[in-house]
Amino acid sequence: MSKAASNKAITGNFFEDFRLSQEVRHATPRTVTAGDVALYTGLYGGRFALQSSDAFAKSVGLPGAPVDDLLVFHIVFGKTVPDVSLNAVANLGYAEARFIAPVYPGDTLAATSTVIGLKENSNKQTGVVYVRTTGTNQRGETVLDYVRWVMVRKRDAAAAIAAEEVPKLAARVAPEDFAVPPSLDLAAQDDRLAGSSYRFEDYAVGEKIDHVDGMTVEEAEHMLATRLYQNTARVHFNQFVEGKGRFGRRLVYGGHIISLARGLSFNGLANAPRILAINGGRHANPVFAGNTIHAWSEVLETAALSARHGAIRLRTLATKDRACADFPGPDAAGKYPDDVVLDLDYWVLIPRWV
Amino acid sequence: MSKAASNKAITGNFFEDFRLSQEVRHATPRTVTAGDVALYTGLYGGRFALQSSDAFAKSVGLPGAPVDDLLVFHIVFGKTVPDVSLNAVANLGYAEARFIAPVYPGDTLAATSTVIGLKENSNKQTGVVYVRTTGTNQRGETVLDYVRWVMVRKRDAAAAIAAEEVPKLAARVAPEDFAVPPSLDLAAQDDRLAGSSYRFEDYAVGEKIDHVDGMTVEEAEHMLATRLYQNTARVHFNQFVEGKGRFGRRLVYGGHIISLARGLSFNGLANAPRILAINGGRHANPVFAGNTIHAWSEVLETAALSARHGAIRLRTLATKDRACADFPGPDAAGKYPDDVVLDLDYWVLIPRWV
Amino acid sequence: MSKAASNKAITGNFFEDFRLSQEVRHATPRTVTAGDVALYTGLYGGRFALQSSDAFAKSVGLPGAPVDDLLVFHIVFGKTVPDVSLNAVANLGYAEARFIAPVYPGDTLAATSTVIGLKENSNKQTGVVYVRTTGTNQRGETVLDYVRWVMVRKRDAAAAIAAEEVPKLAARVAPEDFAVPPSLDLAAQDDRLAGSSYRFEDYAVGEKIDHVDGMTVEEAEHMLATRLYQNTARVHFNQFVEGKGRFGRRLVYGGHIISLARGLSFNGLANAPRILAINGGRHANPVFAGNTIHAWSEVLETAALSARHGAIRLRTLATKDRACADFPGPDAAGKYPDDVVLDLDYWVLIPRWV
Repeated sequence: MSKAASNKAITGNFFEDFRLSQEVRHATPRTVTAGDVALYTGLYGGRFALQSSDAFAKSVGLPGAPVDDLLVFHIVFGKTVPDVSLNAVANLGYAEARFIAPVYPGDTLAATSTVIGLKENSNKQTGVVYVRTTGTNQRGETVLDYVRWVMVRKRDAAAAIAAEEVPKLAARVAPEDFAVPPSLDLAAQDDRLAGSSYRFEDYAVGEKIDHVDGMTVEEAEHMLATRLYQNTARVHFNQFVEGKGRFGRRLVYGGHIISLARGLSFNGLANAPRILAINGGRHANPVFAGNTIHAWSEVLETAALSARHGAIRLRTLATKDRACADFPGPDAAGKYPDDVVLDLDYWVLIPRWV
Repeated sequence: MSKAASNKAITGNFFEDFRLSQEVRHATPRTVTAGDVALYTGLYGGRFALQSSDAFAKSVGLPGAPVDDLLVFHIVFGKTVPDVSLNAVANLGYAEARFIAPVYPGDTLAATSTVIGLKENSNKQTGVVYVRTTGTNQRGETVLDYVRWVMVRKRDAAAAIAAEEVPKLAARVAPEDFAVPPSLDLAAQDDRLAGSSYRFEDYAVGEKIDHVDGMTVEEAEHMLATRLYQNTARVHFNQFVEGKGRFGRRLVYGGHIISLARGLSFNGLANAPRILAINGGRHANPVFAGNTIHAWSEVLETAALSARHGAIRLRTLATKDRACADFPGPDAAGKYPDDVVLDLDYWVLIPRWV
Repeated sequence: MSKAASNKAITGNFFEDFRLSQEVRHATPRTVTAGDVALYTGLYGGRFALQSSDAFAKSVGLPGAPVDDLLVFHIVFGKTVPDVSLNAVANLGYAEARFIAPVYPGDTLAATSTVIGLKENSNKQTGVVYVRTTGTNQRGETVLDYVRWVMVRKRDAAAAIAAEEVPKLAARVAPEDFAVPPSLDLAAQDDRLAGSSYRFEDYAVGEKIDHVDGMTVEEAEHMLATRLYQNTARVHFNQFVEGKGRFGRRLVYGGHIISLARGLSFNGLANAPRILAINGGRHANPVFAGNTIHAWSEVLETAALSARHGAIRLRTLATKDRACADFPGPDAAGKYPDDVVLDLDYWVLIPRWV
């Protein structure tokens, strides 16, 4: 068949198309600009002084305001979708995500993924693909590194799978693996401008914080966001098809919920502007336009990193159409109520009292 | 109680928390960028050549296109919300607003407020707080200065109030207090590019202008705008809570209506790209998504400022779901019809015929 | 009548106001920024590497990522609306559009139109106005040149029309008239980063490509877009008026559909990042918020331009609420089904195998 005779539109890889150790360089490198930052602010209302103000960022040792870590995550993630998850049934998890070099407006991000695990499901209809994705800047420095696994449809149930393997993944990123920008000194910050008088020593393991506020999701917003990330997962955009599907609705990109929860978490965590690592995450239930997102956090662990900085390991849960004053989460058996939508385990950087 | 045992989320000040002469430095300094300008254009469709074109701005003596005055206002205003009006019942008024140094992309805005008035209401449930807010740039220059007063709930009706005072506020900003950028010469502009052949001398006191066009408000739009300003007032964002409230709807931020009316007013006032001062303003009725905004203006006063420039004092009224050909406004008793939503008194700069 | 006594708001030109050879310099020059580019990405999700990445653009010989050609088109087009089509009944067609100098963030666009044709309709209620519009940058270089014709209402059916003429327009822009940036060498690109392994030689005349994906349109999105372009056509914005009109709905700007179709066409045409020319276009049916847009393309013609580059002439059709696997289009009599909304004939640049 000549190239011209085949349909040139990409329909994505199926489970049997992946091979262990396969490396995929993803399309569309992306220069991140002040325009992306502004739209991200308009979408989530982030108020961390470090990302909002060049002057503030300089006052704590950076050359200017870095791009929000989750915007970097979403852009890198978006690049992987056409190659990894266009035929995904479910996004199962994240692990070992580390935010390394800060990203500044003008930097160009590119992404590469390596298949590190494959496991066919017993029904032979689907399998789980594990990829380690690396985001780099235009100097080839790694800005982000993470593992994601996803359940992908088979094109042909009868197709044989060459080699399978389930990777061992760390339960959490260890503090010795954090990348704190060497020139950064959050301890030198003006706490009034940052918006909080709470530093590392004021947070205790087991402490719970209700972030109080809620944010309703609109179709135009989650689609603007998801397109900004050049994420092409079809379930977010096509009401004509989704209207006939399982939910009768477009699904909101899970990353949109992560960013909403992170935005809400400013209220209680204003001094924690940088995500160091994501240990794991689960989208417990789907979110649709019209849902209102609330969030709460629990301090899981703390780690002093230097005289200036500490790290707090947080678990942030988000709900739909439910306030978080009673800290809703999974029951003893690990089952989530229908209105809990996110359970994210991550580390943030915070200044110490000096 | 240890710091860790208390909920770290901010729930805002109540009336009895304020003190006369108290100064509050607000959180989250904000670098304004070309990204903010673009999103602002997308939200309101502004067409003033001065703010749209670096080339045009240079042709009239500025180093580049300044940021729209109302975008500056909204960003400065947004910073004050967590400290001043999170527990507000109503935003009562503005006065003595002066736009001083122009703001350019790359400038960082910060805000400080001083409590200049306090007056408890006779019901002891609420009180009125008057603040003077100053917005500054990264060089410490004042870009904006205004007074706002707001009715704030008491936490405890029995709480005593230390000292009360109602400030005397000017009915209008006087022309001698205007700040016109010294290098600016709008009289040198190309009127075709600016979009109008009407200059200072063509406007007469008492003249009324119907701005003709209408703009329908969507939930996604007013929320994008209000988050862009990092304004955290809860009534704009949380349908889950507001759905059970007085209106059953999210309220649109009053400043969104000011910007819509200003955008519409280009049609008739294209040669008045700079706001010099806001003398007062009233949000006469609430606006909800789905409402269509129209606007009209009346010339209240004119003042020649120099050989190049004059100032026109305007009163711009906006309506919801009502055209403005009949110039709707308050009745003789000062009562507003239900469909008038804004009554704004302000000064604009305009070139003279030379 | 003194200037002050007349309403200063513009209500647009009527058919009898136009004169053959009349030249109109349109208002509001516009500096295009990285902010506009980001919002454009958020609206359409474009993934062409050339426009997304400064690093990629440099790797193929440009100084940085150029602004998407259609964003340039929409901005130039928007400027013409207040002068040309505020009283239009229908936008009838485009022809002879050539994209000449690339536009980069920071460039300032201005637009001028010349009336090249006038033809009154036999009912004397309307007439067709043909204009040639030129968009220029701040150095006076032409970035875009196109012909558009539009049916415009008469103010007064009895008004006489001075001179009429229907211009002869080319059925297609000829390859010798294309402007390829001299330093550009797409053949040097990394096809993995561009997202396609198909180059010029792989496309055959008559080949049809289903772009597979669909995108649902929201009110907030098309209004954000149309305001970003400073396009003031009233039918897009005013539900209060349109709700009582022919459709009972706001109409989506036709250019929004062109950009959506172009965004979708990446899937199958990823190596064709630059539009060289638009030969003609038809908005076959109106689109409203809630409609889902799909698209397909047919290769009409191919032309080798140099050792590095070829051009492909495409016809891209878009539908509402209908998939394009069966390549829907007009019937033999040229009549379009109700769900076909766009039929666009244009040339794109594509690298050759070298």
